[in-house]
Amino acid sequence: GDRAGVASALVERYAAELVPSIGGVFNEAVPLREAVAKGINIFCTFVEKEPELFRFFLEASGPDPGAMNTALGAMFASSFSASLFAVGRDPAMGETWGHALPGAVFAAVDWWASTRTMPRQTLVGHLTSLVADAFEASGVTRLAPPS
Amino acid sequence: GDRAGVASALVERYAAELVPSIGGVFNEAVPLREAVAKGINIFCTFVEKEPELFRFFLEASGPDPGAMNTALGAMFASSFSASLFAVGRDPAMGETWGHALPGAVFAAVDWWASTRTMPRQTLVGHLTSLVADAFEASGVTRLAPPS
Repeated sequence: GDRAGVASALVERYAAELVPSIGGVFNEAVPLREAVAKGINIFCTFVEKEPELFRFFLEASGPDPGAMNTALGAMFASSFSASLFAVGRDPAMGETWGHALPGAVFAAVDWWASTRTMPRQTLVGHLTSLVADAFEASGVTRLAPPS
Repeated sequence: GDRAGVASALVERYAAELVPSIGGVFNEAVPLREAVAKGINIFCTFVEKEPELFRFFLEASGPDPGAMNTALGAMFASSFSASLFAVGRDPAMGETWGHALPGAVFAAVDWWASTRTMPRQTLVGHLTSLVADAFEASGVTRLAPPS
């Protein structure tokens, strides 16, 4: 219907903005933990401001969230594999982590958006720890830009 | 149609088996890293053995994968929050990680199932590192059973 069409166009526009917006984090010369927090915060802020659009995003009737997650996953995989390679670790692990990250954030935000058991900043901090702790355990302190 | 009905019933049966099967990992007195690897391997083995069912699982026309992920997320959240609380860390971080984990594994396995760039054991190792490194950075060496 018309409502679904309008919502679908809105979600597609947001997705088209979110991917480069999150990608912009890689252009900033900031430590790993700060870069991860910024990227995750951009997504969580979108969900906090547009909860109905996020819900629509998750519904089968809406546009495929897989398309946005695949674009984000490819970008993260490129950065993460270069970041691990730079410190002598297996770049394939970065590919795996890169493709895992959008799913991790989507799933956690889905739970958070329906329970709201913590402020957004706390959620972002917890998700940042998961990723940044793992990178730091591998000796990565800065993320390489995606190629 | 009939084919979709048969596939749907199969997926539901698998989901009904996968959740308690993965939960069984918590009953074993093994170190954190080994427990995480076992749980992730159960899911990846299912996808490797039943790629068509996994693909059907991801499709909008199939049964809601959210239901299985919500059940897994709640189980992980319960264990992870108790595990972090036991070492004096914020249990809410464990809730967040618990709900993030099924999404992370689903997204990474979705990518892996379509590219097959590494053996299953390598994929399981990379995903295990992401989770176990983060827990170890928080001082957790064993996972508490879910309550």
